[in-house]
Amino acid sequence: MRILVMNCNTTQPMTEMIATSARRVARQGTEVLGVQPAWGPASAEGFYDSFITAAAVLDRLTTYPDPFDAVVMAGYGEHGREGARQLLDVPVVDITEAASQVACLVSHRFGVVTTTGGSVASILDSLAVSGMSGRCTGVLAADVPVLETADGRPEDLSTIVEQSRALIAAGADAIVLGCAGFTGLDEELQGVLAVPVIDGVTAAVALCEVLVGLGKTTSSAGPFRSPDPSGAFVGWPISGAATVGRSA
Amino acid sequence: MRILVMNCNTTQPMTEMIATSARRVARQGTEVLGVQPAWGPASAEGFYDSFITAAAVLDRLTTYPDPFDAVVMAGYGEHGREGARQLLDVPVVDITEAASQVACLVSHRFGVVTTTGGSVASILDSLAVSGMSGRCTGVLAADVPVLETADGRPEDLSTIVEQSRALIAAGADAIVLGCAGFTGLDEELQGVLAVPVIDGVTAAVALCEVLVGLGKTTSSAGPFRSPDPSGAFVGWPISGAATVGRSA
Amino acid sequence: MRILVMNCNTTQPMTEMIATSARRVARQGTEVLGVQPAWGPASAEGFYDSFITAAAVLDRLTTYPDPFDAVVMAGYGEHGREGARQLLDVPVVDITEAASQVACLVSHRFGVVTTTGGSVASILDSLAVSGMSGRCTGVLAADVPVLETADGRPEDLSTIVEQSRALIAAGADAIVLGCAGFTGLDEELQGVLAVPVIDGVTAAVALCEVLVGLGKTTSSAGPFRSPDPSGAFVGWPISGAATVGRSA
Amino acid sequence: MRILVMNCNTTQPMTEMIATSARRVARQGTEVLGVQPAWGPASAEGFYDSFITAAAVLDRLTTYPDPFDAVVMAGYGEHGREGARQLLDVPVVDITEAASQVACLVSHRFGVVTTTGGSVASILDSLAVSGMSGRCTGVLAADVPVLETADGRPEDLSTIVEQSRALIAAGADAIVLGCAGFTGLDEELQGVLAVPVIDGVTAAVALCEVLVGLGKTTSSAGPFRSPDPSGAFVGWPISGAATVGRSA
Amino acid sequence: MRILVMNCNTTQPMTEMIATSARRVARQGTEVLGVQPAWGPASAEGFYDSFITAAAVLDRLTTYPDPFDAVVMAGYGEHGREGARQLLDVPVVDITEAASQVACLVSHRFGVVTTTGGSVASILDSLAVSGMSGRCTGVLAADVPVLETADGRPEDLSTIVEQSRALIAAGADAIVLGCAGFTGLDEELQGVLAVPVIDGVTAAVALCEVLVGLGKTTSSAGPFRSPDPSGAFVGWPISGAATVGRSA
Amino acid sequence: MRILVMNCNTTQPMTEMIATSARRVARQGTEVLGVQPAWGPASAEGFYDSFITAAAVLDRLTTYPDPFDAVVMAGYGEHGREGARQLLDVPVVDITEAASQVACLVSHRFGVVTTTGGSVASILDSLAVSGMSGRCTGVLAADVPVLETADGRPEDLSTIVEQSRALIAAGADAIVLGCAGFTGLDEELQGVLAVPVIDGVTAAVALCEVLVGLGKTTSSAGPFRSPDPSGAFVGWPISGAATVGRSA
Repeated sequence: MRILVMNCNTTQPMTEMIATSARRVARQGTEVLGVQPAWGPASAEGFYDSFITAAAVLDRLTTYPDPFDAVVMAGYGEHGREGARQLLDVPVVDITEAASQVACLVSHRFGVVTTTGGSVASILDSLAVSGMSGRCTGVLAADVPVLETADGRPEDLSTIVEQSRALIAAGADAIVLGCAGFTGLDEELQGVLAVPVIDGVTAAVALCEVLVGLGKTTSSAGPFRSPDPSGAFVGWPISGAATVGRSA
Repeated sequence: MRILVMNCNTTQPMTEMIATSARRVARQGTEVLGVQPAWGPASAEGFYDSFITAAAVLDRLTTYPDPFDAVVMAGYGEHGREGARQLLDVPVVDITEAASQVACLVSHRFGVVTTTGGSVASILDSLAVSGMSGRCTGVLAADVPVLETADGRPEDLSTIVEQSRALIAAGADAIVLGCAGFTGLDEELQGVLAVPVIDGVTAAVALCEVLVGLGKTTSSAGPFRSPDPSGAFVGWPISGAATVGRSA
Repeated sequence: MRILVMNCNTTQPMTEMIATSARRVARQGTEVLGVQPAWGPASAEGFYDSFITAAAVLDRLTTYPDPFDAVVMAGYGEHGREGARQLLDVPVVDITEAASQVACLVSHRFGVVTTTGGSVASILDSLAVSGMSGRCTGVLAADVPVLETADGRPEDLSTIVEQSRALIAAGADAIVLGCAGFTGLDEELQGVLAVPVIDGVTAAVALCEVLVGLGKTTSSAGPFRSPDPSGAFVGWPISGAATVGRSA
Repeated sequence: MRILVMNCNTTQPMTEMIATSARRVARQGTEVLGVQPAWGPASAEGFYDSFITAAAVLDRLTTYPDPFDAVVMAGYGEHGREGARQLLDVPVVDITEAASQVACLVSHRFGVVTTTGGSVASILDSLAVSGMSGRCTGVLAADVPVLETADGRPEDLSTIVEQSRALIAAGADAIVLGCAGFTGLDEELQGVLAVPVIDGVTAAVALCEVLVGLGKTTSSAGPFRSPDPSGAFVGWPISGAATVGRSA
Repeated sequence: MRILVMNCNTTQPMTEMIATSARRVARQGTEVLGVQPAWGPASAEGFYDSFITAAAVLDRLTTYPDPFDAVVMAGYGEHGREGARQLLDVPVVDITEAASQVACLVSHRFGVVTTTGGSVASILDSLAVSGMSGRCTGVLAADVPVLETADGRPEDLSTIVEQSRALIAAGADAIVLGCAGFTGLDEELQGVLAVPVIDGVTAAVALCEVLVGLGKTTSSAGPFRSPDPSGAFVGWPISGAATVGRSA
Repeated sequence: MRILVMNCNTTQPMTEMIATSARRVARQGTEVLGVQPAWGPASAEGFYDSFITAAAVLDRLTTYPDPFDAVVMAGYGEHGREGARQLLDVPVVDITEAASQVACLVSHRFGVVTTTGGSVASILDSLAVSGMSGRCTGVLAADVPVLETADGRPEDLSTIVEQSRALIAAGADAIVLGCAGFTGLDEELQGVLAVPVIDGVTAAVALCEVLVGLGKTTSSAGPFRSPDPSGAFVGWPISGAATVGRSA
């Protein structure tokens, strides 16, 4: 099985870090392909970056040359998930929904700690649209810039711990890491916080393996039906690939 | 006052039609600038098109050469609104939210009639995120392809009438036209249906005039804060303009 | 265009202040008629006053001698809006709903600052019924008696500022002035708070102009159908006018 | 114990019918006082009537000469409940909330059958504000004019039965009679429908007895605090009584 | 009338205390039968205990030898209510729902004070399922072990008072006692807190009397239909009684 | 890895069928242990059966002699999940939540087809408590008795197909099989319906493998904290095992 793990921003070290995390949990026989958009923000924070990122990710998916069996969209709270589900006939799991689902299986209510305050509203909207906000006690920012996480981890976990504790005090009994750049921190934080800490990247890889294993993929009978292949596009895809439509 | 009315797809006759509607209701002294993205789908239907459109619209806004005082985003249910609000320091009104607001002022519950079934889920999500779904009785598709509307109006209004009547039977006492391509049909349909019929394009133009008149624009204190001008972008904007950031 | 701006309490200086605000934003050609009920509370705070006010306002609307094109109901959170919509065939906009709508166009979430704690529950219910509470972070009282505002403005804005800041800390990026008596304070507070501050009186005037401009008025096909003219009333209207039913 | 049973319209035979129902279930030692407003609609249907009725009921409560221990507000979906709770220091139970509560105790979901379509929206809003709509499957009108019920019962129950069956098919396993004029029909309809049928008038009488028996009355610590006795009113109460404020 | 008051845990002194409270408010002619399960936890706190308790209570109801007219389920937030409604053809009122209903009749919003933090989530879910959470401002634990209440009352009410005040500060204008073991404390706490304090045990007894008085019992037409008497059970009821099915 | 797959009723052939399905999707190295309660209903349908089942399942888990790494609770809509999470320190996944989660990953909205009408309300409540109902279009019964499914599959799938199509017409683009007894039908139905059909048993097995693989288990910091080992129980566990508390 080949899982395309899509870093949603254009920072190559972040792609490496995310792929490394993905490989750490992937089963034997699962190949992880780390990839990033050809254009777009170096660090996606908030609505504007998120919309650009969505298109850049869809562009990259459209032009990706090799076959794959599932996609992880590794931008927390990022838009575009529904577009990718429509574009591809393999399963698409984004880390926002994946982390929420795993958190729901091991807790009564979960809280989300993200990087910067500018992402909070976008994350809240994303949780609401995916129907996962009912069991979320809140989203707090640790004021850690995303790119500071690109070398593997933020130097200082103290604000993440502090905001996690605020969410636990408000009723959360699990914490979701609200940024792909926080990947790999779950075990250390779990030790400190004494609640399950969920890393969306690893959760999404595992859920991709579930969907492929069960033989389930996105429904083509409703709003995720493939876009009309005869639909005219002006100048799209941006990256110059010849084919438009489902690539895999 | 100059209002940029952004057709969200790349079909020029549609831009003309929308601009004509906008000019019909604009006050004396308001100049309407019709514009469309440089790239993207010829007709935006459903999630995938909508995400591409969002980026294409933001690209066009980033590179638009002349000053303007407000923006109408004329794609019903289309994504990108929050990104444009973040990008610009002038008011941004999309026709989905505008039509809902006007409908709420003249009815107890409204229904939405859109073009094709593939857009319904995207519209439902858009209404939910903008907080307007609480007073919406439903969204139904009239099975009218968007592009068939580009020459001014669909030839046959019968399915629009039929779906409107289904929504009225379900408790709606106003109808919202759920496609920019339906602009200009409100009065004729109002005569047939005997309930207020709201055209989002004209509603959004009027609400832009309200915001400019009251001296109100998007808050820069929360999630719509302008993107960091020092934020690195790879290959963005697509269209090649030199400046990134607020254009107006 | 003639807009009847209805102060919901019986204090004449408050009527003047509200009308002055309304005139400040009215377009050229719009005439503002300030009016108040013939009976009822001098200051409407909370449920009981609000119900009395609703009937007094409907009584005044029933007996108002001259024609008008739209009505602003200038009592924040006051009841009666739906009754006026049923009574009249011109548009009716109350300042609670108007301020919420304008706030939604320029922010992600808004907070409301009102006068006294006794009004908070009534306002929360009003926002819920109009479907606008989904994007409201909370309603706080500044402990400013309504009548202290009647001479144009409260002497001391410090508690309004303090409660606004509490709402902003809780996620609001716009503030709504939750009392007609706060009209005219929006620009000064906006300077202090650095977020959009919305004055419902001016918002409602502008939305009345929108509805009249678009040729839209309350639906007569649903619950806002005019009351049966043959319906027997005992001793109503209170104020002794001969006609019962739609006056305009 | 003396319970004031307030018919919300001005039709005397309706008052008698309601009082008769109330007396049928009142415990030994409970005296039922039937009363009606001094002014207002002969039949309250929809928002406009409801707002007039609310003030007329509050006027009547303000001027009622004798002491009482609890009030039943016998208008289904009628406004004014919160005002009466603020005005009086004895318990106030309206038939809308009472019938919903009893229905919740004997069913999983309940449906409401009311008189005319013009009342449906007002009832939906009333249920929502009292927090009871979560377990309501819907409100349907049987197209029975309220006044036709004033002589004791509508001649023909067939439309009530038909609409009840539609609600049961939609998941209701109890029916609430959504009009004070339907009082007394519960047992006959229960026989036909084979589900519990709840009469709000008798339910509200019983709940008043509960509150008096438990020594509980409306909280005076929050929004139902008594209106300020020094608050100036112009021309209120309408009916000319000398006292303003709590009468009992 | 005979009301079976079911203490949900197996602690006999708690049963006595609950029955004493029930008798204090029962009308003349109502006989209160205190009873407890034959097996299960000595003190029910949280989900696990609650599920055991539910079955133990249903077992006790199945095997109870004498006839009764209604059942009070005296475990706050405990599961099993819907099962008992299905099992019996007499009314079943649990103290969670009863206290919420009475609180709604005398306040705008209520708060719940329970014993230990381990019960809070279970109570929140119980309120949600019964549709009563819309008017609840929160559930707080006073850190009073249930069994400490079994001799009539906790020695120290100070934490209950403190948590009640926190809920009042958050908008509650009534307090619900969230544990059967708190029964009898309502009047003393009401004196201290100056808001209505609701004791679910007495509320449920009174509501049982209402249902019996009105001749209403659980609907047998929907999900509370009696279990199929021919349904095979292995080893059930646990307590060895011969009959399975409705006992009363 | 050893997964305990708990059939929630006492019918041995059903246990076999469920275990067979579980084994079909279990990864190499995963051992599936089929088990059933020692007492309780032969077929669990509706609230009453569900509460008995919950305790019987917890009893069986308490007394199960061998170690295991995760538990699948294979009763659709059955209660008890939260109790098992509290009891055990290994992950617990019930098929209701598992099927919903997988459905959310491959569709915009899902519908549920269950066996008999008596289970619908219980399932709706279960979905609501787990926060998954926001994306569910409805639950319909195919009128197939559970036990008829025990030999592997119902003879006639036509009513399942019919109800699935009704849900798809209402907006669902995936179908969840709402009964453990329907396990194994997903692929055949998927062929007929042309939408993803989710089998909760296989979904839950796969999610158990995810949780074990990621090293995540139920939080012990909140409401799922283990019951106090010193807590006194009378006569529990029913089945006579010596140990009370976490078994694995």
